[in-house]
Amino acid sequence: MTVKVAILGFGTVGEGVYRTIQTHESELEALLGKKVEVAAVLIKNNQKERKIAKDVLITTDFNEIINLSQLDIVVDAIVGKDPAFNYLKQAIERGCHIITANKEMFAHHGKELLDLAEEHQVSIGFEATVAGGVPIIQTLRQLLKVNRVQQIQGIVNGTSNFILTEMREKKQSFADALKLAQEKGFAEADPTNDVEGFDAFYKLMVLSRVAFGNAPNWKAVERVGITSITSDLIETADQLGFRFKHVVSIQKEGDKLIGSVRPVLVSKSHPFYHVEGVENAVNVFSDIVGRITLQGPGAGMFPTASAVIEDLVYVSQSNQQNKLQTNPVIEVLPLAAGSVNNFWLISGVSKTELSPSIHPVDQVSDQTFIVETTDEEILQKAKEFPSLSYYPILDGTQILQNKKEYLTVTI
Amino acid sequence: MTVKVAILGFGTVGEGVYRTIQTHESELEALLGKKVEVAAVLIKNNQKERKIAKDVLITTDFNEIINLSQLDIVVDAIVGKDPAFNYLKQAIERGCHIITANKEMFAHHGKELLDLAEEHQVSIGFEATVAGGVPIIQTLRQLLKVNRVQQIQGIVNGTSNFILTEMREKKQSFADALKLAQEKGFAEADPTNDVEGFDAFYKLMVLSRVAFGNAPNWKAVERVGITSITSDLIETADQLGFRFKHVVSIQKEGDKLIGSVRPVLVSKSHPFYHVEGVENAVNVFSDIVGRITLQGPGAGMFPTASAVIEDLVYVSQSNQQNKLQTNPVIEVLPLAAGSVNNFWLISGVSKTELSPSIHPVDQVSDQTFIVETTDEEILQKAKEFPSLSYYPILDGTQILQNKKEYLTVTI
Repeated sequence: MTVKVAILGFGTVGEGVYRTIQTHESELEALLGKKVEVAAVLIKNNQKERKIAKDVLITTDFNEIINLSQLDIVVDAIVGKDPAFNYLKQAIERGCHIITANKEMFAHHGKELLDLAEEHQVSIGFEATVAGGVPIIQTLRQLLKVNRVQQIQGIVNGTSNFILTEMREKKQSFADALKLAQEKGFAEADPTNDVEGFDAFYKLMVLSRVAFGNAPNWKAVERVGITSITSDLIETADQLGFRFKHVVSIQKEGDKLIGSVRPVLVSKSHPFYHVEGVENAVNVFSDIVGRITLQGPGAGMFPTASAVIEDLVYVSQSNQQNKLQTNPVIEVLPLAAGSVNNFWLISGVSKTELSPSIHPVDQVSDQTFIVETTDEEILQKAKEFPSLSYYPILDGTQILQNKKEYLTVTI
Repeated sequence: MTVKVAILGFGTVGEGVYRTIQTHESELEALLGKKVEVAAVLIKNNQKERKIAKDVLITTDFNEIINLSQLDIVVDAIVGKDPAFNYLKQAIERGCHIITANKEMFAHHGKELLDLAEEHQVSIGFEATVAGGVPIIQTLRQLLKVNRVQQIQGIVNGTSNFILTEMREKKQSFADALKLAQEKGFAEADPTNDVEGFDAFYKLMVLSRVAFGNAPNWKAVERVGITSITSDLIETADQLGFRFKHVVSIQKEGDKLIGSVRPVLVSKSHPFYHVEGVENAVNVFSDIVGRITLQGPGAGMFPTASAVIEDLVYVSQSNQQNKLQTNPVIEVLPLAAGSVNNFWLISGVSKTELSPSIHPVDQVSDQTFIVETTDEEILQKAKEFPSLSYYPILDGTQILQNKKEYLTVTI
């Protein structure tokens, strides 16, 4: 008796999964009561040499894999929606469990795949789609079943966090920090996906589906990357006791979901202040337990392989738990629709241009202020002055209490 | 069809569980397909008035509970080994699942109860024994099954962490910080259990059993509380860029388990540096994923109730997964047996008394030094000079790299 696995893609993730199945053969057999064997690997380029055992089918043709006489689990380690979605549909229809590390695909087609899996009585593991080795998906699926999740915040893009950390620590420009990230293999040649917040956005949609049984209307979610953040802004923030973090956030307010993907400022008392470099972290706020934080490696060959391998045991042992908790969320609003006062660091306008609607509580430099106002006011002002950049301060109300500590100018 | 629950004890934890079952009735019914009802509450003092529904059996006699016509789950929210252990044995023998928040009892009798539960095909939930609402136990049991855990470090006693935080932030004495902790309800009238490390020790034994399938020989584990830490030492550490944290640690080295419960120094780069007040945090180092950190509320009515309620779903749904992963651990050694070099902050001896065996790398004050030496040497010196207090610096090797940053005196 063996469990036969196919791995689609043999990049960092695919290879990590392959190697971990070899090194953890005995653990897997002890847990499942069966040997786990990689039966096939789907590759793109059959000219490349790869360290794969001779008895493994290596092919560029998915048909050869889906027609294997035995196939139990299909691992999706491909990047991008297509053709991964199509392959996984076929795998589910054949009766295979599936495991995916493909956030873009799962953000788009997660619901469809979960429904299809339920119909065919197989399971889906997707821990590796969010925050690499940090077991946030399974914590939400398995460990917080009774708790009603109210909000999730996450640093889920290691590349952006690395760039922001480098810019602050070494006083580097965005361009230089990005170049270093590329040299270190943390960023792609085309970094758009990371630095413009698309990758983080996909992860937020997956988190939302797990936590709230629903993903917001994508167009209603603000998505802002880190490219507007300058060394000067980072230094200003640092002097005020804040750090820039690129944070995804989704919260339930009544029957609405409010989501955003954007740079924010966090103070020392926020757990994200200390999450540096390529680390990822997720805060979960639930009604019974309160806030818990998970932190760990957000990417890399083995952290991601860890997520896949643990899912491999999960899908094999679980009795098809694809139904995610659902909440009666009927409407989804962007962050900007909020009319609650918040604190912001804003830059790119003069004091005269701010008035009369916005009164700064602190002036940091000629064109940089701390203001307390609503999302609506900020958005209105940003329409008037396209040069305006604005960053919410998380837990900003605490600032009022400790005002003296950092407010340098009284206006 | 209902699930009938008895709650043993109606202190903070028991009452939290009772109230949460009421407020989360619909979630529990949706998850289990049955209503969950509290059938009975065991109390000590039947003179006290309590807000418990009229149809619940309230009794001081456990026999009345164990003889109920239907009883499915018994929740242990009592403090101390006895009579809890005896009650839980009876409950298991009757075929009930059990859930416990009782670390002292479970540290002593966990193995026996898990074996008995396996024999009687019932499940045990014990998430609430360690770190309150932080789901570390279930992360280890359910989410890190293939990963081989190598080390666990934890801040698992909120009282001690609160005292250390107060002492540093407000420059208070140990006595004043303890008094405040008592006023806030974080510390008992007799604080021995917390400040001498017994509570943390019990939690470490439970963690060890989950992570390594084995608990060390208790006598081989160094247990030191926080009572030796003075305001002066805290300030010295702060100036050097370190913070005192009371940390439990257990690691596997070959076929040995090495455990300790003691104050250590952590630098800014360690995730524990920022864990303040009553918060708890646990680091898990595993072979595939690397280091992940879980942080959250370590105590309190609802965080602990959260752990119990999630366990309630777990024991009801799990197919008796009591078998914990076992490792071929045959011998257990105290930290002190290590002969690897480490960095320490030591105090209470003169430079002359240190020599010739130990050469300080930095002299902080007359009788306070940073030294690099082995555990063995330190213990040897501590035998010679009982006035010597010594605190290992976690991740101390990083210090060498950044030596210039803080080393003030070269010797």
